[in-house]
Amino acid sequence: MAKEKKLVEAITSMEEDFAQWYTDVVKKAELVEYSGVRGCMIIRPDGYAIWENIQKELDARFKASGVQNVYMPMFIPESLLNKEKEHVEGFAPEVAWVTHGGMEELQERLCVRPTSETLFCDFYHNIVHSYRDLPKVYNQWCSVVRWEKTTRPFLRSMEFLWQEGHTAHATQEEATERTIQMLNIYAQFCEEVLAIPMIRGRKTDKEKFAGAEETYTIEALMHDGKALQSGTSHNFGDGFARAFDIQYTDKENTLQYVHQTSWGMSTRIIGAIIMVHGDNSGLVLPPRIAPVQIAVIPIQQQKEGVLEKAAEVKEKLGAFRVKVDDSDKSPGWKFSEQEMRGIPIRIELGPKDIAANQCVIVRRDTSEKIVVSLEEVDAKAGEILDAMQIDMLERARKHLEAHTYETADPEEFKRIAAEKPGFIKAMWCGDRACEDKLKEEAGVTSRCMPFAQEKLSDTCICCGRPAKAMVYWGKAY
Amino acid sequence: MAKEKKLVEAITSMEEDFAQWYTDVVKKAELVEYSGVRGCMIIRPDGYAIWENIQKELDARFKASGVQNVYMPMFIPESLLNKEKEHVEGFAPEVAWVTHGGMEELQERLCVRPTSETLFCDFYHNIVHSYRDLPKVYNQWCSVVRWEKTTRPFLRSMEFLWQEGHTAHATQEEATERTIQMLNIYAQFCEEVLAIPMIRGRKTDKEKFAGAEETYTIEALMHDGKALQSGTSHNFGDGFARAFDIQYTDKENTLQYVHQTSWGMSTRIIGAIIMVHGDNSGLVLPPRIAPVQIAVIPIQQQKEGVLEKAAEVKEKLGAFRVKVDDSDKSPGWKFSEQEMRGIPIRIELGPKDIAANQCVIVRRDTSEKIVVSLEEVDAKAGEILDAMQIDMLERARKHLEAHTYETADPEEFKRIAAEKPGFIKAMWCGDRACEDKLKEEAGVTSRCMPFAQEKLSDTCICCGRPAKAMVYWGKAY
Repeated sequence: MAKEKKLVEAITSMEEDFAQWYTDVVKKAELVEYSGVRGCMIIRPDGYAIWENIQKELDARFKASGVQNVYMPMFIPESLLNKEKEHVEGFAPEVAWVTHGGMEELQERLCVRPTSETLFCDFYHNIVHSYRDLPKVYNQWCSVVRWEKTTRPFLRSMEFLWQEGHTAHATQEEATERTIQMLNIYAQFCEEVLAIPMIRGRKTDKEKFAGAEETYTIEALMHDGKALQSGTSHNFGDGFARAFDIQYTDKENTLQYVHQTSWGMSTRIIGAIIMVHGDNSGLVLPPRIAPVQIAVIPIQQQKEGVLEKAAEVKEKLGAFRVKVDDSDKSPGWKFSEQEMRGIPIRIELGPKDIAANQCVIVRRDTSEKIVVSLEEVDAKAGEILDAMQIDMLERARKHLEAHTYETADPEEFKRIAAEKPGFIKAMWCGDRACEDKLKEEAGVTSRCMPFAQEKLSDTCICCGRPAKAMVYWGKAY
Repeated sequence: MAKEKKLVEAITSMEEDFAQWYTDVVKKAELVEYSGVRGCMIIRPDGYAIWENIQKELDARFKASGVQNVYMPMFIPESLLNKEKEHVEGFAPEVAWVTHGGMEELQERLCVRPTSETLFCDFYHNIVHSYRDLPKVYNQWCSVVRWEKTTRPFLRSMEFLWQEGHTAHATQEEATERTIQMLNIYAQFCEEVLAIPMIRGRKTDKEKFAGAEETYTIEALMHDGKALQSGTSHNFGDGFARAFDIQYTDKENTLQYVHQTSWGMSTRIIGAIIMVHGDNSGLVLPPRIAPVQIAVIPIQQQKEGVLEKAAEVKEKLGAFRVKVDDSDKSPGWKFSEQEMRGIPIRIELGPKDIAANQCVIVRRDTSEKIVVSLEEVDAKAGEILDAMQIDMLERARKHLEAHTYETADPEEFKRIAAEKPGFIKAMWCGDRACEDKLKEEAGVTSRCMPFAQEKLSDTCICCGRPAKAMVYWGKAY
């Protein structure tokens, strides 16, 4: 009993200290372990299995849209990084530099890729010649490095895993279409698979990617009311093509610059899963992404027939990802562990249940207990997992709606920003000075100009001049 | 016609210059592109799709044997790399060093991982405490960097993709069992999926991994008679555990060191596929690993009904990975491309075929043409792919056997080494001096002491002293 208490007590409650709760959960649920390398995390089996499922789902959606995977070098020569002015200014201050190879000093430093626009551009310069070579819709799954000062597992680490798509098109229309298409793939994936509702929109110039003409984003709201940028898609126009001289001959035999996009989603999204769905007992994983969907926990497993029946139940649940916990721990301890790890449902099965040809299914998100006949345990488990997936999205959507405020009054804006964690919808003149001022005075940044625009008033919430767009404002991770 | 010739002429013939043939094929089949980073290659969609299939197949076999995937940092602090003496001596001369992060010089240099034994040991030191925590059977898919002087695509590059498994066990028996188990998984995978027969055996002390007690290897014979080390599995005993202090309390509550293994297979194996199966028309991919298994090539595709019928045939071939080449190139050009890319079979389909309700299937490996009724095109295609997979392994096995020599006569040994590319089986005393001498005088190295030992004579082929083992000798990539 002392041991069982220990596992649960080890988590700080969300209400007491959300940041500490997060750190406790990633550690206790064994998603990550800190490494001896500053700012770099070890992703443990239970964390990595979530990423593998994310990869599998996203990659299938990418491929269905015509994406092909490639692999580019992890090093970028300094001269190549320097080719696009805005891009290098954005990234050079946060890269790791390789200066020695083997026993020799390099003639030119190499940076470890923080992102690979420059490498893809150099590649496209070499392989794109004719309109027949277009479009190029390439993606890579890899790790990148950004020399961050303060780091947190999944949310901000020096090295992280991601995918980065890089495309080249004959026309601007096609590039724009691809930019939006990928943003929608991200948003649909997050909603359908991760049960996380997303605000889709465009970044302001201040917040856009270094070198992009336009950056689109999906923004999620965490349990504590802070926003998390969860995926971005950039439209480069022909800016990089001009810097890297990527030209093709069109059907009329004239030289044209290509139009490009890039888009990425990273292990950061695992942080969103934790902070949107988790509770004071630990992780809560949406069934579609959970590496283990069902934990079968035998009660009085030493009694004859219990473990055999548990194995039989597992067999019957062959359509799901199931684990039987037959370790020599107590059932209570096993329940705590299953809850901490966020396994969507557990099946309790003891001698009395077996005698009655039934078992008890417990939902991780609601703690609801459902007595089910063993005859129909597979059908019922499927129904419960489906219901849980739908309810989790619905609950997250309600939380998002309940924590989204709107105002046209500057004083109220500051009051909400100070007192009510969440998004604030308010009008904006389009001027960067107002963004800077709201950051300073209310502590919020522009998250995006949503596709779903509303006209809340005629004037900017900050300066009172004519408004150009409605913006989602918030405090962000 | 001029264009069609160009594609084929672009490959040097194997007989003329095997090394140039290899370079031509990887380039013309669009597997890789050289990058602006010395010694680093870009893996293009057709090359990466092969790697994805390798990953999928191997990963499933790993998981079935209890392996769990993780992700470790790509950087190793210098002090951590230095902890195991033999290991650091083996790797330090060939690593890339990060000395600056952002604008600052680092207090301690970080190397980009050449392999991750040291990181896994540090991790296991932190998480292994009790016998209950064992075994740990972890693996990661990642890229590693080794500062090589001369590089060749897939075979030897500064950065390459691989998987590295790292395990920790309570007993030496268990570690030994895992070492052999993984070697066998590699060998079976290569034989069953890649159609490449392997010699399984143990490396001599000279050739073993830096820090290992024993290294096991699978060795394949390329078309030119050179050997390629295709996968290795290392038994570390408790050497690393002592250097990194990885101890656990056993059931009797006494402290014990763990016993460890590591094992890896890399993108190098793609080089083996090319050099075992390829011919003067390009790549020949074994059906089980081919990203596209069947190319449907319409003849006179502008004629009514041809493209529709091609689409119908593709539909009927739903169980396979099929591509219809409806580009505006000539059929001859498409045939050349399909051959260059090594697509196992092509289906030729023109108006006359359609009128006769048939098509022509052409095998890539034998050029055999088989007329098949459209009614049974799926069943026949399946049979032909299966036969091709079996025949390719058989052909490679015959080539291996025909190029494996044995001798007990020192002079004959040198003559074979000079004149007949392939493996030479010969007895060895176990002394490194003899290995060095055979390298110097005959240009061969010990590839392995095969599990299937034979006693060819009583004495060492080099020094005439009593022999301890039969060794496969050869020239290697």
